[in-house]
Amino acid sequence: MKWNRSLPSGTKDKLFREANGAYQLEKQVNDIVKKRGYQRIDTPVIEFEDVFYSEEKNEKEFYRFFDKQGRLLVLRPDMTMPIGRVIATTGIQPPLKLAYSGKVFRSNDDMLGEQNELTQAGIELIGYSSLKAEIECITCAIEILEALKIPNFHFELGHAQIFRLIVMKLGLDEAAKTELQNHFSNKSLTDLKQFVECYPSELDAFICAIPRLFGEAQEVLPIAKALLPVESTIINVIDEIETLMDIINSYHQKISLTVDLGLVTLMDYYTGVLFSGYADLVPDIFLRGGRYDHLAEQFEHPVIPAVGLGINLDTLVALQYQLNNLATLDQPTTLVHSSITQLAQAEALVKEHHDYQLSLFETLEEALDYGRKWQYQQIIEITEDKIQVIKVGERN
Amino acid sequence: MKWNRSLPSGTKDKLFREANGAYQLEKQVNDIVKKRGYQRIDTPVIEFEDVFYSEEKNEKEFYRFFDKQGRLLVLRPDMTMPIGRVIATTGIQPPLKLAYSGKVFRSNDDMLGEQNELTQAGIELIGYSSLKAEIECITCAIEILEALKIPNFHFELGHAQIFRLIVMKLGLDEAAKTELQNHFSNKSLTDLKQFVECYPSELDAFICAIPRLFGEAQEVLPIAKALLPVESTIINVIDEIETLMDIINSYHQKISLTVDLGLVTLMDYYTGVLFSGYADLVPDIFLRGGRYDHLAEQFEHPVIPAVGLGINLDTLVALQYQLNNLATLDQPTTLVHSSITQLAQAEALVKEHHDYQLSLFETLEEALDYGRKWQYQQIIEITEDKIQVIKVGERN
Repeated sequence: MKWNRSLPSGTKDKLFREANGAYQLEKQVNDIVKKRGYQRIDTPVIEFEDVFYSEEKNEKEFYRFFDKQGRLLVLRPDMTMPIGRVIATTGIQPPLKLAYSGKVFRSNDDMLGEQNELTQAGIELIGYSSLKAEIECITCAIEILEALKIPNFHFELGHAQIFRLIVMKLGLDEAAKTELQNHFSNKSLTDLKQFVECYPSELDAFICAIPRLFGEAQEVLPIAKALLPVESTIINVIDEIETLMDIINSYHQKISLTVDLGLVTLMDYYTGVLFSGYADLVPDIFLRGGRYDHLAEQFEHPVIPAVGLGINLDTLVALQYQLNNLATLDQPTTLVHSSITQLAQAEALVKEHHDYQLSLFETLEEALDYGRKWQYQQIIEITEDKIQVIKVGERN
Repeated sequence: MKWNRSLPSGTKDKLFREANGAYQLEKQVNDIVKKRGYQRIDTPVIEFEDVFYSEEKNEKEFYRFFDKQGRLLVLRPDMTMPIGRVIATTGIQPPLKLAYSGKVFRSNDDMLGEQNELTQAGIELIGYSSLKAEIECITCAIEILEALKIPNFHFELGHAQIFRLIVMKLGLDEAAKTELQNHFSNKSLTDLKQFVECYPSELDAFICAIPRLFGEAQEVLPIAKALLPVESTIINVIDEIETLMDIINSYHQKISLTVDLGLVTLMDYYTGVLFSGYADLVPDIFLRGGRYDHLAEQFEHPVIPAVGLGINLDTLVALQYQLNNLATLDQPTTLVHSSITQLAQAEALVKEHHDYQLSLFETLEEALDYGRKWQYQQIIEITEDKIQVIKVGERN
């Protein structure tokens, strides 16, 4: 048989310490959110494609396939849309604090070297309109990152309404909107200057300044407000960011937190505050979240206010591995060997000591070889009439 | 937007207690195998199709799709083959005791009402030729099922060599082999009688008796041996089952354990003892395992002796749910409400009490409604100048 010895792009095997560490890390996160009062939800990996339907989303990212009736299925690219589906189709009543962890899938281009199968954990606060829910998200994220000892993590805040209000004010069509989104993402001063020439408005100064409107809130937000006409609703949005920043700063004095008014999001369900998380040694954003009051609407359900965040756990596992911070494995000291008829006695002895392991080898020789290879201290041999201890390295 | 409100066939959402219970159950299993010295392995959900290539396997069961280069991918239908791939392609050296848990996928016919996405946990003992490894599998399974308090579980043992030796002796081609396999599976006396008329041999009496050769080992095995010619190698196989049964019975006196010499397996990598697990109130086999010394060979790797088993955790979760044995959720007693500026103080109070929850509502009225709905005992309200306790049901 001929077969491909490699793995599909963007997937990987985790073995031994890395696999154990990844599992323990996910468990740590789940334990924290459970303690904070979140209830677990577990939706399928396979969903009908229309759950993830979105006008703005780049649909090329999905893994698509068919079921036996020829209906189009996808591997879930995120967990938020399926949770929206659950809220909209089951009778469960908000307010709800939901938590999840599991795999999500994206069919990225091979060239990018991105993860196509990744483990995500997150929370969703459904039915909460208060800014307290945004604070809860950030506080919960801080608790998780501190528990995992992630070095020098940093949050950046933005707001989905800034982009939306500009689009509305300028009356942009889909093409112009996408163009503006790209200029925002690329922080392209020249392109924005040309753009406002085509779409002039009283927001020109603000739009052109967007690429520079990031950094410390107390510096950036007053500048931003000064660039806006006094009656602009964008000022209310900036006030909301200001309030949120003040509270978070008073709450978590040592946290590194900046704003970026040019933050735009791929997901069109976001409607309010946006947050991204970064950390030293981590090349990409590993945490994303925000307010998305229109999620349920996508499933023909009345509007429900909601805030959530998702954390890419694989990125944190890789970081912990690199820093040698992943949970270690206990090294057993003693291998207990017996004949097959004495196996129950050997098992009973192993059960009494957390650092004993049962030998499943046929012969004592094999047990000794294994013990030497894995640096056991001793082999205990149980025979019908005696129990003997053999220091590894010695022969009996 | 129009969308399908249902879930793909054979998938389901788990919410709240069921989701938490499923997660805790998986963790209990993982903790037990870790303590028994198994090392965790985590392979991708997505694999190239040829990892699961098998001449005998019904390939219609896979979910298939393409990557961006047009290579055929599948959702893993089991965990054993990917582990074979890892052993064959990485430098890791047996002997190894590996453990896994995660989702596997099968594209079953809708009519059957089967699970298409299921959570499996299991162990693989790689590089162990001793019968001790079979005993370890059964012992480990017993430890898991006892820890989970599964009522009246039962194991059935068979042996892959019985069917293989018959096929070899009779010189059957693929079609005849499949036919015989079906007659074995269906325990069809009439069909077997007709079959041996077409393929007569000194095994006729044994083959025709197969549908009846199940039950208590001490009854079935002597009958089986009496039906076989004295020089038949099948007698050695039955002796092996006898030895194994004797040891397990001496080891685990209270365990319900029978044999079925007509047990055949879909997976052609099995080469030795086969085991299946059943329990009261569970309609299907929820545990399968056995010896599969030819697994590595499928990946062009020298033969490695190996034994393993897999447990369908979703079946056990459903059973525990039905029996009301799933882990319960702690019911919080107190909701701590504050203005947004007092949130840090409220959070600090919640942290001190495991049964306190933070209110993320804007107003005290909302907190009171929620508290009444979810039967909290009290609301603690923190304001700038006082802390007051409101019994739920009362109004301040």
